[in-house]
Amino acid sequence: MRIAIVAPSCTLDPLVAERLPALAKEAFGDDAPELFVHPQCYLSKGHFAGPDEARIDALVEVANDPSFDAIWFARGGYGACRVAEAALDRFTSAAGDKFYMGYSDAGFLLAGLYARGIGRPVHGPMPADLKREGGEAAVLRAMEWLINPKPAPELSVAFNLTVLSQLLGTSLQPDLADHVLMIEDVAEYMYRTDRSLFHLTSNPRIRQVAGIKLGRFSLVPKNDPDFGQTEEQIAKHWCAASGIPYLGRADIGHDADNKIVPFGWTTG
Amino acid sequence: MRIAIVAPSCTLDPLVAERLPALAKEAFGDDAPELFVHPQCYLSKGHFAGPDEARIDALVEVANDPSFDAIWFARGGYGACRVAEAALDRFTSAAGDKFYMGYSDAGFLLAGLYARGIGRPVHGPMPADLKREGGEAAVLRAMEWLINPKPAPELSVAFNLTVLSQLLGTSLQPDLADHVLMIEDVAEYMYRTDRSLFHLTSNPRIRQVAGIKLGRFSLVPKNDPDFGQTEEQIAKHWCAASGIPYLGRADIGHDADNKIVPFGWTTG
Repeated sequence: MRIAIVAPSCTLDPLVAERLPALAKEAFGDDAPELFVHPQCYLSKGHFAGPDEARIDALVEVANDPSFDAIWFARGGYGACRVAEAALDRFTSAAGDKFYMGYSDAGFLLAGLYARGIGRPVHGPMPADLKREGGEAAVLRAMEWLINPKPAPELSVAFNLTVLSQLLGTSLQPDLADHVLMIEDVAEYMYRTDRSLFHLTSNPRIRQVAGIKLGRFSLVPKNDPDFGQTEEQIAKHWCAASGIPYLGRADIGHDADNKIVPFGWTTG
Repeated sequence: MRIAIVAPSCTLDPLVAERLPALAKEAFGDDAPELFVHPQCYLSKGHFAGPDEARIDALVEVANDPSFDAIWFARGGYGACRVAEAALDRFTSAAGDKFYMGYSDAGFLLAGLYARGIGRPVHGPMPADLKREGGEAAVLRAMEWLINPKPAPELSVAFNLTVLSQLLGTSLQPDLADHVLMIEDVAEYMYRTDRSLFHLTSNPRIRQVAGIKLGRFSLVPKNDPDFGQTEEQIAKHWCAASGIPYLGRADIGHDADNKIVPFGWTTG
């Protein structure tokens, strides 16, 4: 199988791309995927992996190439919302036959793909996770899933909370009726998590979900004064206020344990 | 005239409340407004000026009291989104005869009032601005306007960008068709301002505004890597992408020069 790596957000460290094929070969032998790292991944302009146009063109190129089975977003950061609509507008039918894997800022694209019913968006680790402690396991988990994709035990999606909040009410917002909605976040003040959960749970279309599961909220900066509530207390508050069932914890987050969640694909 | 001060977000410094009446007397003599500082302003619970229930009750009490001509939000911070819907649900007809002034986090309430057509929401300085450099002028500007209210030269509203972004798609989102939308922000990374402007300008209802004017974006933390664009370049980018006219700068912001913008009230 062939996987194309593109970077709709920030620049990929070339060392990551160098290590990936050897790691894949070692783990999967002859079943190792063929990895194509689009040269756009190494571009740099300000915050981004190249200008908007270059990131759009690269994504459109690999999505519309029928020889690729999966598109793997190189890393998060910020920038996917600047390219999502323009890129999706140029996707052809070949783009519909693929998996699209990533998380964090890539959620703008996963959301847009799911909203338009294009291909199969999947929350999962990205190549740049190799740089995390224990990151090899995360990257191998992602590749193993792409070699041998499996549906989820329940109708579900997974998002970074801030990213999902920032696409509510735009054309990227997908229909999540009856889905289990998993959310996670990183490096956000607790008061911001509270505000994002207000925003999320006050949206009439989000209120149609089957329930919310809470992933990990890591590297939370110290609030002054102390916010006085954990993310779980906050989530329970807003779920109760909005009538959305709170369904407990989910094993996702900005870490090496981050599990794979294929959007809306279930055996159930 | 009588002004009631309540704190739907964070606790008010008692020194501010002490100085206000003397300042008003000195500036306006016999025309000085009678200021009632609700004791809720001094409550403290975690991040907030008391528990949600206390903040809701105080706001409802003064809004429904026909003896007050204006409600003046004590300060911003964070917390108004936790009380807005519940408080507005309990407003009676007496609440419709009043001005409501504030900005920043108080924008959640100004938005909700405007969405429901209750009273006259006004973007303007708050009592806590007394603590800013030059803050006396800001606070006097606010009181002078409340003593002698004047319509704006154009159909307009003003919001903190982050606050407006976080209420899009909720019941607090007002109809801003044909309005000049002024936005400002404070202490947000430039990449977040870019993301918030994506969110704002991608909302179909926001696209009905007459145009966007840009207030001040102050205390922007250093982006790493440098974002490479000013807030004006960013606003022009998203206005062009969304078809919203960019109308230049507005004299609003988190500072003593922050001007008064009565929502939707114009001579024009």
